[in-house]
Amino acid sequence: MGARETVEVTGHLMDSGILSRILDDIRDYGGDYVIEKFDVGHETNDPSRARISIEAEDDGRLQRLLMRLQTRGVNQVAVGNAVLAHAELDGVLPDGFYSTTNLETRVCLDGRWFDVENPEMDCGLLVAGSDTDDPRVRTIPMSDVRSGMQIVVGASGIQVSVPAPASLGEAFGPPSDSPHERPQTVLVRQVADAMRQTRADGKRVLWVAGPGIVHTGAAPAMVALIGAGFVDVVFAGNALATHDIESALYGTALGIDMNTAQGVEHGHEHHVRALNTIRKAGSIGAAVADGTLGSGIMHALVSHEKRYVLVGSVRDDGPLPDVHTDVIEGQRAMRAEIHDIGYCLMLATQLHSVATSNILPATVPLVCVDLNPVTVTKLADRGTSHGRGIVTDVGLFLEQLALELVPDYRRG
Amino acid sequence: MGARETVEVTGHLMDSGILSRILDDIRDYGGDYVIEKFDVGHETNDPSRARISIEAEDDGRLQRLLMRLQTRGVNQVAVGNAVLAHAELDGVLPDGFYSTTNLETRVCLDGRWFDVENPEMDCGLLVAGSDTDDPRVRTIPMSDVRSGMQIVVGASGIQVSVPAPASLGEAFGPPSDSPHERPQTVLVRQVADAMRQTRADGKRVLWVAGPGIVHTGAAPAMVALIGAGFVDVVFAGNALATHDIESALYGTALGIDMNTAQGVEHGHEHHVRALNTIRKAGSIGAAVADGTLGSGIMHALVSHEKRYVLVGSVRDDGPLPDVHTDVIEGQRAMRAEIHDIGYCLMLATQLHSVATSNILPATVPLVCVDLNPVTVTKLADRGTSHGRGIVTDVGLFLEQLALELVPDYRRG
Amino acid sequence: MGARETVEVTGHLMDSGILSRILDDIRDYGGDYVIEKFDVGHETNDPSRARISIEAEDDGRLQRLLMRLQTRGVNQVAVGNAVLAHAELDGVLPDGFYSTTNLETRVCLDGRWFDVENPEMDCGLLVAGSDTDDPRVRTIPMSDVRSGMQIVVGASGIQVSVPAPASLGEAFGPPSDSPHERPQTVLVRQVADAMRQTRADGKRVLWVAGPGIVHTGAAPAMVALIGAGFVDVVFAGNALATHDIESALYGTALGIDMNTAQGVEHGHEHHVRALNTIRKAGSIGAAVADGTLGSGIMHALVSHEKRYVLVGSVRDDGPLPDVHTDVIEGQRAMRAEIHDIGYCLMLATQLHSVATSNILPATVPLVCVDLNPVTVTKLADRGTSHGRGIVTDVGLFLEQLALELVPDYRRG
Amino acid sequence: MGARETVEVTGHLMDSGILSRILDDIRDYGGDYVIEKFDVGHETNDPSRARISIEAEDDGRLQRLLMRLQTRGVNQVAVGNAVLAHAELDGVLPDGFYSTTNLETRVCLDGRWFDVENPEMDCGLLVAGSDTDDPRVRTIPMSDVRSGMQIVVGASGIQVSVPAPASLGEAFGPPSDSPHERPQTVLVRQVADAMRQTRADGKRVLWVAGPGIVHTGAAPAMVALIGAGFVDVVFAGNALATHDIESALYGTALGIDMNTAQGVEHGHEHHVRALNTIRKAGSIGAAVADGTLGSGIMHALVSHEKRYVLVGSVRDDGPLPDVHTDVIEGQRAMRAEIHDIGYCLMLATQLHSVATSNILPATVPLVCVDLNPVTVTKLADRGTSHGRGIVTDVGLFLEQLALELVPDYRRG
Repeated sequence: MGARETVEVTGHLMDSGILSRILDDIRDYGGDYVIEKFDVGHETNDPSRARISIEAEDDGRLQRLLMRLQTRGVNQVAVGNAVLAHAELDGVLPDGFYSTTNLETRVCLDGRWFDVENPEMDCGLLVAGSDTDDPRVRTIPMSDVRSGMQIVVGASGIQVSVPAPASLGEAFGPPSDSPHERPQTVLVRQVADAMRQTRADGKRVLWVAGPGIVHTGAAPAMVALIGAGFVDVVFAGNALATHDIESALYGTALGIDMNTAQGVEHGHEHHVRALNTIRKAGSIGAAVADGTLGSGIMHALVSHEKRYVLVGSVRDDGPLPDVHTDVIEGQRAMRAEIHDIGYCLMLATQLHSVATSNILPATVPLVCVDLNPVTVTKLADRGTSHGRGIVTDVGLFLEQLALELVPDYRRG
Repeated sequence: MGARETVEVTGHLMDSGILSRILDDIRDYGGDYVIEKFDVGHETNDPSRARISIEAEDDGRLQRLLMRLQTRGVNQVAVGNAVLAHAELDGVLPDGFYSTTNLETRVCLDGRWFDVENPEMDCGLLVAGSDTDDPRVRTIPMSDVRSGMQIVVGASGIQVSVPAPASLGEAFGPPSDSPHERPQTVLVRQVADAMRQTRADGKRVLWVAGPGIVHTGAAPAMVALIGAGFVDVVFAGNALATHDIESALYGTALGIDMNTAQGVEHGHEHHVRALNTIRKAGSIGAAVADGTLGSGIMHALVSHEKRYVLVGSVRDDGPLPDVHTDVIEGQRAMRAEIHDIGYCLMLATQLHSVATSNILPATVPLVCVDLNPVTVTKLADRGTSHGRGIVTDVGLFLEQLALELVPDYRRG
Repeated sequence: MGARETVEVTGHLMDSGILSRILDDIRDYGGDYVIEKFDVGHETNDPSRARISIEAEDDGRLQRLLMRLQTRGVNQVAVGNAVLAHAELDGVLPDGFYSTTNLETRVCLDGRWFDVENPEMDCGLLVAGSDTDDPRVRTIPMSDVRSGMQIVVGASGIQVSVPAPASLGEAFGPPSDSPHERPQTVLVRQVADAMRQTRADGKRVLWVAGPGIVHTGAAPAMVALIGAGFVDVVFAGNALATHDIESALYGTALGIDMNTAQGVEHGHEHHVRALNTIRKAGSIGAAVADGTLGSGIMHALVSHEKRYVLVGSVRDDGPLPDVHTDVIEGQRAMRAEIHDIGYCLMLATQLHSVATSNILPATVPLVCVDLNPVTVTKLADRGTSHGRGIVTDVGLFLEQLALELVPDYRRG
Repeated sequence: MGARETVEVTGHLMDSGILSRILDDIRDYGGDYVIEKFDVGHETNDPSRARISIEAEDDGRLQRLLMRLQTRGVNQVAVGNAVLAHAELDGVLPDGFYSTTNLETRVCLDGRWFDVENPEMDCGLLVAGSDTDDPRVRTIPMSDVRSGMQIVVGASGIQVSVPAPASLGEAFGPPSDSPHERPQTVLVRQVADAMRQTRADGKRVLWVAGPGIVHTGAAPAMVALIGAGFVDVVFAGNALATHDIESALYGTALGIDMNTAQGVEHGHEHHVRALNTIRKAGSIGAAVADGTLGSGIMHALVSHEKRYVLVGSVRDDGPLPDVHTDVIEGQRAMRAEIHDIGYCLMLATQLHSVATSNILPATVPLVCVDLNPVTVTKLADRGTSHGRGIVTDVGLFLEQLALELVPDYRRG
């Protein structure tokens, strides 16, 4: 082995399981390690600190291992300055580019530290104005790279902070002592509390929503929550909007498969007529304005002037005029709405939840609700980030959530 | 081919899909058929009637096919008298025994028809007092057969009635028009209506309950429903009762895996201590009487003098003293409670739900609630019987059900 | 009720369950019916024929019900000529447009019948050259409509043929009698037989492939099948290609979660480097040509000059330069490859399988293989079409399939 | 807080995640801790050692926490002697009894250490002959306790050893480098290697088998593996044996639902006739002897004189005469076969796998194969023990396993 580097990590290393993952990573990359120093917190809430010497076969491998370890909050002791390289081609990052995490990240340029403006996973780091007094560093997705841009390569000059698990715990609050409150209902109440807190903090609530919301009959609950101000932005696909509009235009009895809680997505003419009707109107907003669309989730979003980003997929019919058919454009539209998000609810959609998870900073608490345990595990387990999963029915979940948050829901 | 027989079937043959299943059965048994006559109902609600000539390779095969077809309500035109044979061994039915369905069944003895007293699947038919003026016919499970008993063999002399699908529809009622009511919440309300109706009819409500009720925090809702008189009999295993008692004795925070909504079933000392405590008391009832057990589902059942049958399984620890460790004895205890059941709720247990489904007459409406679609499909699709499945979370389901049925639930 | 129409349907109405579905549809649309005539086939293999008088509240509703019934092969007795209307806006079908099925369809123009060239679900019907001697009729997706096009409205003048179930049975062949052959292995062998037959018929085999193929280690089996000529076209997303290329460039040990048989889709730098490498090369083909990419599925497809269509989704990183980022463009590229497909294999992807299912004619036999029973049920149950589902592991499935079809696979 | 104790733990504390679990446990029990000393292994393979001072509210709680921690291999520094108490009632352990793990356990009596003979979870510890020179200590299930027995109470005088993770790794061996070998097929090969090794070590292979083996067509593969000597003991229920025998007597075409890979368990007369036939013969062995049963899994087990334990459940029909209808008797019969087991395969049965998992020592490597990821996670994640899960199809898995282990399988 040739290349070697010393790294450090601080935090609740043992009780969060993070140290196991670090050592797993080193092994996965074929590296070796010596734990040089380990200061363990003596009391329950003390953080620990480890200094580890890492060795890899060659420098390329070592650099990639170092980048990997930064996703765990492991930073080099001798940080140095970040190394920059020019992109040579549009849409292509320079070789050895630093691959980002969604954690809070700082970059050292000429001995000064700069925060990365918009942490996002699997991007490059763009340095703008590096020759000025006020350089800025932000993540840039591969497809937005333009020739000549200055991009960080390698892992030196970079520091990553892993958020303390405590902040999530606080967002959810401690389990209640009330005898009537137990797991599933407690979870609903904790989500309700976090949403109230988010609003009180002046932050926005992001919903990532699948068509199962319509099929399980949760649209009235979601409409009530929109009206009560608990929905600021919705990310969804063509299906949620189309099924919601189909339901508003044609009633809900048709096209619903009770057994699987999944609507029949195709082969039923109602949804293509609904699509055609909105296309004729020009947009969902126009259909609301001209009275064509008078109820449902999309109507409520338009009426209450809430934001939504609909991104298409290869299985779409139509699609609705508001749908981004180019998925890269769709991602850009989603990124433009990520600012000030304080809480994210992911409901019954794996596709859009994974997409959102990719661009959401790790500091935003998120909760994933789905009937399928595999989906929930996938989304909620985002390594060190603030994910929480609830394996339950989205229909009854939103019903309970509306009962918690909307004073007169189903009581009028 | 040699053996031949003519059969008849009446009902909503086409819109219920029953005719497809009949023809599938004939093919599966290697038989052939000619549809001799087919009177189709002309109006929407008219029944149809088919007369079919069936042929099979030999008489043994034909008899078995005829028995199979009776599960679809297909009866022989020339019924004749039932043929009886003596059981030669304890626990063994005579060769060629008639294998029962859970449908209403009549047996012709010397030209007179007798109702089978307790329709149950996969049993023999015992004729008692065939030499008296007052013979009786009832189902008998294989293991209860005693040498010398008179048992029906072959399919002649037997008629089976398939219940009209209408009666189930009525039990559930038509979908509501209320704008706030949609699939999952509508389904809860329909179950609530059916339970009220069952009570109004003077019938009993049977709950088949898995430990998921405790793990999802639905115990308070179930306790409220017991108190309000909507639980008459509970069939369960050692796990439901033990986890409920563990929760009552040690609190609910421990042993719950939020992610899968499944409690950790083993390896946790709390449940063995709970078991030991009740074993020491002698029984659940004794533990309630001496004040050891003061809350939870089992406490509510004992306090309100409701019936319960707990049957063990090979994975049990303990078990509780009230548990039938012999599964055949357990089945007998369950059979003894089947009388007057007007509605059956199956909640989050595949094992006990299948067991109950085996002994429940087809005329009893049942609803199966489970997070796993495979379990729901298995239970709800009982051929011609009155099953309904809801793929949802049992925790939120019971919470909503209690809100529907118990006036002051969570409002005090 | 006012509007009324008489329809006819011929086929194995009872044993296919089709009549039940027809009557369900009539009820769903609030219609009523009288069965005017019903000729039942007397022998096992005779078809039946029904003539049904249908009534609906008004003509609009009736027309939509008639279109719906055509998905079942139910046609009007008095067919008449098709009614045409001009599209008034780009991307919008005229009101009352005929919504297509994926069944073989004929359209009557001035008393002459014309086959629809490319049956596809949920489209409109475009008539080109209706004022010439040689008019042509083809399906047109909503988004391809241009102002002024002539589109069929209403259900008159249209006939739909439901394929006989027999043809599927033949494609699969009867179950083997060999004692070693049982369900799962029999199913693999039937798929192998159908693929051999497709090739013998000069038709093409379409694979719809998810990244699970790479994660379960089935890439070598798929490469062998490509080499042996059993893969003509592949529809997939960015993930399959990226994970395959990542595996070829970096080895397979990383990024695989053995427990769920799902790879870690994000947060691992290998896949972004793989993406960047191919983007730098310009295309997958260029990377094969310049030696960058030397193994794996994509390499095999390029080397053997097979076709592939990659369509992006909102969760994609990169994406690869070959990926259609506009999903509507992607659908067009897929449509361009549908010709001459004789068999379709859908493997471990719900998104792309549903998308393919939307554009595939009902006459193409398809088999859907997935570990998730919900996905399989959704895909395989396409109403009257030729779908078959296998709930199994795609890794072992392709291993067995390669053992069946590639003489020296794993034997060299 | 009052009660306090110092404990120690040694091993790969960080890279196995065990320390996180220990600290979780302390928190769960409301305890507090101070890490007094932590020696971290400096090199990759060095073990670490921690000394932790633990505090709990009172001694009862502390004792229970200490017992809990022993499941993690955490032992008290000042061990002392074990405290014994007499059982006062049959079937009831004394208050404060030590609740066992399935780990290797030693008990200190009068300063001498004795190995627990048969480690098993959730039992008490019986000391026999404590007044002799040769006392013995073994686990005793609650239901086997008899009044007057001497039982260990509290956690003092007990030491538990957690097996090193390495030993499992060796059993499975490192991933192969062969290009044709990837996850699912690699996993099959690793299982095959472990089974060969078990046989070479003179140990027995235990199969825990569900009826899915018959339904997925894996019976021939299992028969071949029995013949080749890779099956020593089978634990199963009535269903596996009945469906296997039904298949042998009536053929396999019937009663199989391809879609769910689950056979129709009830409502089909074949299985009750199969049951009656064997009951008439007296036992499975008698039916083999008299020629009634000539093929299938049970036939192979009898013919090759392999051991099997069938334990009943509440959903059973019949059952077969060989089935233990009393589940506690069934557990005893299973325990009697646990000796010398070197490897355990759990296939497509959650019920019997959990039951086996309860009584199997943690040192026995086990692999759980099931299509349902929830079942696999539950079984394979046994805390510190040697479980491994494979989410795959048991039919194709056993087919591949037979191809690996039986030289002429499907090649003759």
